[in-house]
Amino acid sequence: MLEKLKVDVLEANLELVRRGLVLYTFGNASGIDREQGLVVIKPSGVPYEQMKPEHMVVTDLQGTQVEGSLRPSSDLHTHLLLYREFPSIGGVVHTHSEYATAWAQAGRSIPAYGTTHADYFYGPVPVTEELTAEEINGDYVLNTGHAILRRFEGLDPLAIPAVLVAGHAPFTWGRTAADAAYHAVVLESVAKMAFVTATLNAEGAGVSQCLLDRHYFRKHGAKATYGQSSEPHK
Amino acid sequence: MLEKLKVDVLEANLELVRRGLVLYTFGNASGIDREQGLVVIKPSGVPYEQMKPEHMVVTDLQGTQVEGSLRPSSDLHTHLLLYREFPSIGGVVHTHSEYATAWAQAGRSIPAYGTTHADYFYGPVPVTEELTAEEINGDYVLNTGHAILRRFEGLDPLAIPAVLVAGHAPFTWGRTAADAAYHAVVLESVAKMAFVTATLNAEGAGVSQCLLDRHYFRKHGAKATYGQSSEPHK
Amino acid sequence: MLEKLKVDVLEANLELVRRGLVLYTFGNASGIDREQGLVVIKPSGVPYEQMKPEHMVVTDLQGTQVEGSLRPSSDLHTHLLLYREFPSIGGVVHTHSEYATAWAQAGRSIPAYGTTHADYFYGPVPVTEELTAEEINGDYVLNTGHAILRRFEGLDPLAIPAVLVAGHAPFTWGRTAADAAYHAVVLESVAKMAFVTATLNAEGAGVSQCLLDRHYFRKHGAKATYGQSSEPHK
Amino acid sequence: MLEKLKVDVLEANLELVRRGLVLYTFGNASGIDREQGLVVIKPSGVPYEQMKPEHMVVTDLQGTQVEGSLRPSSDLHTHLLLYREFPSIGGVVHTHSEYATAWAQAGRSIPAYGTTHADYFYGPVPVTEELTAEEINGDYVLNTGHAILRRFEGLDPLAIPAVLVAGHAPFTWGRTAADAAYHAVVLESVAKMAFVTATLNAEGAGVSQCLLDRHYFRKHGAKATYGQSSEPHK
Repeated sequence: MLEKLKVDVLEANLELVRRGLVLYTFGNASGIDREQGLVVIKPSGVPYEQMKPEHMVVTDLQGTQVEGSLRPSSDLHTHLLLYREFPSIGGVVHTHSEYATAWAQAGRSIPAYGTTHADYFYGPVPVTEELTAEEINGDYVLNTGHAILRRFEGLDPLAIPAVLVAGHAPFTWGRTAADAAYHAVVLESVAKMAFVTATLNAEGAGVSQCLLDRHYFRKHGAKATYGQSSEPHK
Repeated sequence: MLEKLKVDVLEANLELVRRGLVLYTFGNASGIDREQGLVVIKPSGVPYEQMKPEHMVVTDLQGTQVEGSLRPSSDLHTHLLLYREFPSIGGVVHTHSEYATAWAQAGRSIPAYGTTHADYFYGPVPVTEELTAEEINGDYVLNTGHAILRRFEGLDPLAIPAVLVAGHAPFTWGRTAADAAYHAVVLESVAKMAFVTATLNAEGAGVSQCLLDRHYFRKHGAKATYGQSSEPHK
Repeated sequence: MLEKLKVDVLEANLELVRRGLVLYTFGNASGIDREQGLVVIKPSGVPYEQMKPEHMVVTDLQGTQVEGSLRPSSDLHTHLLLYREFPSIGGVVHTHSEYATAWAQAGRSIPAYGTTHADYFYGPVPVTEELTAEEINGDYVLNTGHAILRRFEGLDPLAIPAVLVAGHAPFTWGRTAADAAYHAVVLESVAKMAFVTATLNAEGAGVSQCLLDRHYFRKHGAKATYGQSSEPHK
Repeated sequence: MLEKLKVDVLEANLELVRRGLVLYTFGNASGIDREQGLVVIKPSGVPYEQMKPEHMVVTDLQGTQVEGSLRPSSDLHTHLLLYREFPSIGGVVHTHSEYATAWAQAGRSIPAYGTTHADYFYGPVPVTEELTAEEINGDYVLNTGHAILRRFEGLDPLAIPAVLVAGHAPFTWGRTAADAAYHAVVLESVAKMAFVTATLNAEGAGVSQCLLDRHYFRKHGAKATYGQSSEPHK
């Protein structure tokens, strides 16, 4: 059941390892089968080098485990809320990648300082508000998702496929698990460059709306001209 | 004698190499057999690539060498004091990993800036006071341990399994040698992220007590929910 | 047709990967056959690990595709303008390498802080002005080239074989595609060192004209003494 | 002739590559046979991956080439002056390693911020004065050596086996070519940690004389206790 998706989700998880985004068992990637309404996610705390497709955990959109004997990632309910509220996405990734996490810890959105950013994120990568004590003591993982949703009111999640959870770390997403992982990798590079940029020029104003439009729509939407086909950003 | 522990201690030392935490012969890991009251530690100044389990040195808790023809790590007496005074720990690691060492050199504790920190360290990673001239000229290695103990008065060493010795470098520990090495690796990543965070936001206040509690107790204690079993942080 | 040049251009592209200058399909290298007036360039959005010489795209100096079924790099028209206006160059490279891009995003030229810089760049690596909205909304890729040309009025492109496009990223060039890639690699290292230098000493004045001359002409021109022959900088 | 020394010098050069201290053909290591008064040095501009012992160049202490068909490193005369004036040294290394070079470019000595530094360098790693226009236009490479000598008046070169040439890059040395390379590697790590330290705490005072003594003499001199023998710092 969902064999292809399990392979894709495992592969998205391993991409995070290959790109140096995760330490030990940190991080998790998931994907959804929209037709069946089922989510495939990494199990919690299993070393990446031992992970196989059959270790992936399958749940429905409310978190009821449908397949798999291992516990799902402890961040499952953040993923599920994003799938329920962002119907256009097909994959979610969470990492503690170092530079993106540092921006989240600093409580700062990542400004659109240049075209690398603009190629993938149509505006600053926003940081959420801090969760209240009530939210933390309550259903914390779910409330992390709610903090993300509040921050994305009025924003298109596919146009800005990343968020920084204040004091925590980034989440990214995309049309597929592979896309979500791809965005996590690009985000980390963008976050590192933004750190160096902000240190070199604290007042740096970032790109103009005009340049942001030009780069973003070169890779996205009906008029995209990058790559060999109309597939997004590949 | 202690064959299993020697393999574990060697493995903990090699983990430091694999993760890029040590240069040449820098760093050392040890483990203790509490029943026999014997400590296994890396020999001093032997290249890691040539190290075998039989090179590990065995001493009692006072430092009398019980087995092994090589000299033990020059930091032996810091390890031994920690084992004598922190009865809950089973492994100790010392490295000069670059970011953690820089915080130690700056004389600054690492604030709990985010959940990565909170997952492993229940509060700031403290920095010791500088040793006095008398302590340095006296039994320096032992006195390094005493500086750590003074700093941990009122703290639970398993809740904050790391310290920065001012002007020197970090020590970490855990229930086993493997845990101590694991904490050394996580500490270095946390220290790097904290450096970037502090540069991006010098006033950054760090996580709330509430979030610190939530993350720390998600991975530790009777109510831990992370991973596949009740083992700590794996 | 142009088999040798295709191999050279592929190799220049792969050098960017080996040196860690590009993520995924970012970046592009090209080379020109001046006799035939034909340019060989990387296709757009093809993964490097699958790229073969026959995937390289051949165009004339106006951009008419002469060979190859794949679309050329989306930055083609910047490359072509540089070839038309800088007759001494034989290769062009574009990357989003992290430190050079951060200087471009900060809108700052890289000062000649030391002899590593002076060995390859005879003066600061200049940053262009930002493109106007009109230029961005018009023929953007071509206009990027025009911004470079305006910045190089009065400069010898072979003496300073690199530029930072403001808010975007670096372009480098050289007598061959291999030289252009070599300059991209050196530029990234120079940009990283300049970041650290500027952080350590914000007032750092850089090298004297005298030292700049000494180092630059040690590797370039009729009196060069570096290396085993009179070939430039190898 | 000098077969063993050629192998040692080649190996010291390759150690710089393995440790990430050199780009392309940057950097050079040499060693001396004091009995014969002959120096073995890397050839200029030859790629490391093709380098063999027989490519090493042999000169006397005045620079007359005694063996080898390739040109010696362009920094030969700095090496030779150091050998003539520092009779205790047996190897010299020059790199443009990134963090050490950044301190040299910033015109700042590296303070003894911690024990990693104190283990190898008995005091700050000094930066030379800038060379005058006359010195640069004259016998530049030799005059680089003179700037180092002036800076080391009153200092023991084996106690501080490294220098930063202002606006240029580090030189290191030691009892052998291997030691010189070892010091180059340690210097780069110390320079990186010092950068982070200085950024975290601009007023950081560094270690006390007392701690400097304790660490330095733990690894050096008659009373050294580190390692398995009385050999220096191994």
